Amino acid sequence: MIKYTFCGMEMEGTMKAAIIGTTGYGGAELMRILHSHPTFTIHSVHTTREEVPVSNEYPHLFNIIEKTLEPIQADKIAEECDVVFLATPTGVSGKIVKDFLDKDIQIVDLSGDLRLQNTDEYQKWYKKEPVSTEIVNQFTYGLSEWNKDQIATASKISNPGCYPTATLLGLAPVVKANLIHPESIIVDAKSGISGAGRSPSRSNMLAEMNENFKIYKVNEHQHIPEIEQQLLEWNTHVKPITFSTHLLPTNRGIMATIYVTLKENLTTKQIHELYTDTYKSQPFVRIRPLNTYPSIKEVNGSNYCDIGIHVDERTGRLTIVSVIDNLMKGAAGQAVQNANIMNGLDETTGLKFLPLYP
Amino acid sequence: MIKYTFCGMEMEGTMKAAIIGTTGYGGAELMRILHSHPTFTIHSVHTTREEVPVSNEYPHLFNIIEKTLEPIQADKIAEECDVVFLATPTGVSGKIVKDFLDKDIQIVDLSGDLRLQNTDEYQKWYKKEPVSTEIVNQFTYGLSEWNKDQIATASKISNPGCYPTATLLGLAPVVKANLIHPESIIVDAKSGISGAGRSPSRSNMLAEMNENFKIYKVNEHQHIPEIEQQLLEWNTHVKPITFSTHLLPTNRGIMATIYVTLKENLTTKQIHELYTDTYKSQPFVRIRPLNTYPSIKEVNGSNYCDIGIHVDERTGRLTIVSVIDNLMKGAAGQAVQNANIMNGLDETTGLKFLPLYP
Amino acid sequence: MIKYTFCGMEMEGTMKAAIIGTTGYGGAELMRILHSHPTFTIHSVHTTREEVPVSNEYPHLFNIIEKTLEPIQADKIAEECDVVFLATPTGVSGKIVKDFLDKDIQIVDLSGDLRLQNTDEYQKWYKKEPVSTEIVNQFTYGLSEWNKDQIATASKISNPGCYPTATLLGLAPVVKANLIHPESIIVDAKSGISGAGRSPSRSNMLAEMNENFKIYKVNEHQHIPEIEQQLLEWNTHVKPITFSTHLLPTNRGIMATIYVTLKENLTTKQIHELYTDTYKSQPFVRIRPLNTYPSIKEVNGSNYCDIGIHVDERTGRLTIVSVIDNLMKGAAGQAVQNANIMNGLDETTGLKFLPLYP
Amino acid sequence: MIKYTFCGMEMEGTMKAAIIGTTGYGGAELMRILHSHPTFTIHSVHTTREEVPVSNEYPHLFNIIEKTLEPIQADKIAEECDVVFLATPTGVSGKIVKDFLDKDIQIVDLSGDLRLQNTDEYQKWYKKEPVSTEIVNQFTYGLSEWNKDQIATASKISNPGCYPTATLLGLAPVVKANLIHPESIIVDAKSGISGAGRSPSRSNMLAEMNENFKIYKVNEHQHIPEIEQQLLEWNTHVKPITFSTHLLPTNRGIMATIYVTLKENLTTKQIHELYTDTYKSQPFVRIRPLNTYPSIKEVNGSNYCDIGIHVDERTGRLTIVSVIDNLMKGAAGQAVQNANIMNGLDETTGLKFLPLYP
Repeated sequence: MIKYTFCGMEMEGTMKAAIIGTTGYGGAELMRILHSHPTFTIHSVHTTREEVPVSNEYPHLFNIIEKTLEPIQADKIAEECDVVFLATPTGVSGKIVKDFLDKDIQIVDLSGDLRLQNTDEYQKWYKKEPVSTEIVNQFTYGLSEWNKDQIATASKISNPGCYPTATLLGLAPVVKANLIHPESIIVDAKSGISGAGRSPSRSNMLAEMNENFKIYKVNEHQHIPEIEQQLLEWNTHVKPITFSTHLLPTNRGIMATIYVTLKENLTTKQIHELYTDTYKSQPFVRIRPLNTYPSIKEVNGSNYCDIGIHVDERTGRLTIVSVIDNLMKGAAGQAVQNANIMNGLDETTGLKFLPLYP
Repeated sequence: MIKYTFCGMEMEGTMKAAIIGTTGYGGAELMRILHSHPTFTIHSVHTTREEVPVSNEYPHLFNIIEKTLEPIQADKIAEECDVVFLATPTGVSGKIVKDFLDKDIQIVDLSGDLRLQNTDEYQKWYKKEPVSTEIVNQFTYGLSEWNKDQIATASKISNPGCYPTATLLGLAPVVKANLIHPESIIVDAKSGISGAGRSPSRSNMLAEMNENFKIYKVNEHQHIPEIEQQLLEWNTHVKPITFSTHLLPTNRGIMATIYVTLKENLTTKQIHELYTDTYKSQPFVRIRPLNTYPSIKEVNGSNYCDIGIHVDERTGRLTIVSVIDNLMKGAAGQAVQNANIMNGLDETTGLKFLPLYP
Repeated sequence: MIKYTFCGMEMEGTMKAAIIGTTGYGGAELMRILHSHPTFTIHSVHTTREEVPVSNEYPHLFNIIEKTLEPIQADKIAEECDVVFLATPTGVSGKIVKDFLDKDIQIVDLSGDLRLQNTDEYQKWYKKEPVSTEIVNQFTYGLSEWNKDQIATASKISNPGCYPTATLLGLAPVVKANLIHPESIIVDAKSGISGAGRSPSRSNMLAEMNENFKIYKVNEHQHIPEIEQQLLEWNTHVKPITFSTHLLPTNRGIMATIYVTLKENLTTKQIHELYTDTYKSQPFVRIRPLNTYPSIKEVNGSNYCDIGIHVDERTGRLTIVSVIDNLMKGAAGQAVQNANIMNGLDETTGLKFLPLYP
Repeated sequence: MIKYTFCGMEMEGTMKAAIIGTTGYGGAELMRILHSHPTFTIHSVHTTREEVPVSNEYPHLFNIIEKTLEPIQADKIAEECDVVFLATPTGVSGKIVKDFLDKDIQIVDLSGDLRLQNTDEYQKWYKKEPVSTEIVNQFTYGLSEWNKDQIATASKISNPGCYPTATLLGLAPVVKANLIHPESIIVDAKSGISGAGRSPSRSNMLAEMNENFKIYKVNEHQHIPEIEQQLLEWNTHVKPITFSTHLLPTNRGIMATIYVTLKENLTTKQIHELYTDTYKSQPFVRIRPLNTYPSIKEVNGSNYCDIGIHVDERTGRLTIVSVIDNLMKGAAGQAVQNANIMNGLDETTGLKFLPLYP
């Protein structure tokens, strides 16, 4: 593994990254991050589609990233690169990844294909052919803040979904501490439209979505089993959750508004201390001051997950507000954070830039 | 009372309306509706501020509504008009309304001042001086679909709040039928920014709210007691609700995503039948077909409340999605609907126009 | 022809309208207008695509317009209806219209197929097979304010394009009065995205266009010959114009910012008087007060064309700002205005509703 | 002056920067850039208003920039810092700057106060009291690409306005080469709303500007004399320009669509070569490939100025499309670019990050 310390010491070289699936927004965001990353360099970009200059797909990269999209040759990529990021859609990643499994290359997969250990659950929620459990088990679930040790020694990462990241970071402290009624979890989640990908359809047209807000996949979202799988690892009492997803007329951003019933009388202040304490050494989780709450714009373009909490004494319920940029902490940002951890770099390397505001 | 039948018969005249508080969006929406209303005519528009032509405040009315804002003289208004709409802010309405109470004029108040029978609750949630219960009791709560009989014989209406309208229409069937656990009500509500009024502040600037989504007044929104008051009238077992409000980067629209736990195993189909049946003769409530859900754009500029429902068999919870235009069914539209009912007109008179789409 | 006077007199019946091409935004807007029109009723809606309920395509019409899309049978339509609106795309209208030419039915076509008398120009700019000049000549160009007399006696209307409507209404007074250098016309036009139709493509996705603004078809827009054709009818000296089109991240609205060089020293006040005088009896053209200018939101959802003007003494140039709703005065609104005129109705019939604001 | 080379060599230290006027968007953008800048560090932030933690004003900076706003003490700032950025409003900068003139500190002023050499022009367009010409003359106009040599030896920079930057970079090649009729310049400019600052007013409310587009300050914008001053330095024949400004419903972005009449018959290809050649060694100016044009989203959050051009053979006019992010190349980005140049750093230092897309 290549050693690196930012600015001045022990730089034994850079690491070469291949990005597969560069025409989607997740792939584009990986390019944005890695372009400025001090250790990883973008060695090559790959697609299953047309082999055009990447700036044909993304004119904003003109004159900056002047690579041409290449076909996916696993041998060649593994020989030339140190790490491959799969920003391919669910259903596609599972097929491509197989060619890389026995090669000497690190893998970070951003799809849903390698997250669910239970293939029946995969089939039920994704309605696609699952990858075998044997393969899934080779991948470490990359929820950076909670699986850091495993990630540090892993070479294959399945990067969490956008909604699960916001939801799990929000729920972890109270679920792990067993403070809530295990059947009481309700997550009302909202996402900017880039989460729906870059394939045009009537539902993601500006004229249809501007001045609009809609609910979709009611009780059927494929991120439900991913969230429940992790919650159950933390606390075996957790029962099925209610999880709703809505589309915002914004490019980016996820807010998960989470409702749980506390088992005991705890004050906002007590819960706030628990959260502050839990995340005090996590550079990308910011617990907002008492009685303040994050908004999605405040993490725009950054890798932060911002959390605010409030206990309603009238109902005994705790409201948790968890906010991320779906393309950053919810996809490419966390992927790079995991690649950093996996390679012994400071996890913030290349990710310390501020939110774009306004 | 003035008799009226649209086009051809029994037109014994029109009714003159005064609008107070025309500089806010609720007042502007009243002008939009009444301008095309076959019975009500806009006789005069009033303000507590500068007496300028109304098109100074609203250039889109130039050459169409060329009235000048007048001061509020209750005697003169009551003498000249048949009905007065108060589109003034909470705290202001309560003061102005007193001058009209003993006059021969119908009153429709759009503020929060005359809705809560319990003055302590008013003081607690609004943090303002309440109007006396005696006065509040003179007003009929104008949730058109449910209080139609009382409205028909009333002369003073307190028009429901925007969030309460969406929430109550969504909850009524299951609350009245006593089908849910009475402590299980959680309402995750989202509103377009016109709900925040027309006074500029940092939080309603485009640069701050565009590409943004935020939660506000967590567990503290003043519409909570209004919702609970009505729910308790329908079902005395109802317990305090959890109610969250968020701001959307849109001009208009409210969606209330409502979660309740069913007491018995009921299917989506059974609940859907209950809703369809309950609202079958209500022209402005549309129960969406099974497994489809409304979005806010689909009621934009119209008086409809659209509802979709789904039961999650994994959790035993019912999700209710209720959508309105906050300025229409949530304010001016319902105000006119109530004025129609109060005057023996068809409740849809002047309100049958379609949503503006896209 | 069916006589009609609003409310009370001489109503000898209603007129039946067929709408072809209801899946596009122009067709949807026709439904919105005609649904509330006192004379025209929507008899049937037609498509070249799937024959589904219209509310499948437009859920906002659920429970309101419960018609099913029918195939296009010209005989049947002509027998049952008084007027047919073609809201079909350019290239399609030209084909469909032929079946209606010899039938006893009024035609209003919203496409570009029947506007250009010169078939070479059509071919050059539209890059499609033109309809014959003989057929085009049967159609009256429906720029309502300027061709009212011809429209009143016509039975076939080619409705103007959206950009030409805003541009021509803005230029007419000074071009007709021969006040400008005939080679000096520059039009910088901006349109909301509904002008690009309802077919999904990468360029009209929300994620691509939100927070965006782009220029397109530089010096190549197919509305250029339409504008020049009408300008030359008004003033034979007019030379080729510069005409640029941009896409706004809004649903609706067109602004044409027009620059011309005055031949003589004329003041803003003098030009303002010319405009006010020219349009003083046109109910849908509003000349804004001196030194004020319209914005697109101020005509949103309405049939108004709002114009502001300013002379820059430093340069001798006149700036004309002309604003419409592209789906209303730029398409369906003007189509109905023309149908009104063609049938002896007041031109504002069914079109008097206010802009939706905010 | 402090020497610096990125990563590894000759780092003799960092430079300390003070930012004055951090509550506006320009100041916030300076913080965003300098926070990740390898040479400049944010030493202190200053305000004329309340001395609160900067994260009170900008919650997105919580836990990242935990400084408290300090009063403006020129002595202290000059003693502690190497460079001061004035992100204060026009009219305020002129007053504050005086205290720094005789101190040993570099100054970069982002306001309009120190750009116009002619005090009469300042008074005419800004309608404020001008700073003396003597003081203005101490400042170098920081149009980085064209005044690089002067900037390199300067210690006081007046940073160009946002509109002038987009306009001047777009016009420079043809104006300097004397290829256009000197009286033919028309600039139709559009800006995102952050250009209007962070003081709430009705005109920058989301409900007023969303779904809106408006023209403002017709022929009266204060950037006109700034543009003309620079054009005249390049070509004394230039005559007064027509310059229009519009507000877009976006947070960021400026597009200047520029129209000029060519003196000779030149093709798009010839002009394109001129532009490509002119800017070939300018890292932040990207001339788009023939027949393609930039959009504002493609430079969002970055320091690029993207330009596309087209000659219309029908009219002999050249259309130039110039696009920037108003807060970056139009303000804070160019300010840092100038500070880099002034200090012998590579001009791209700390500015190489990609546009945020989507």
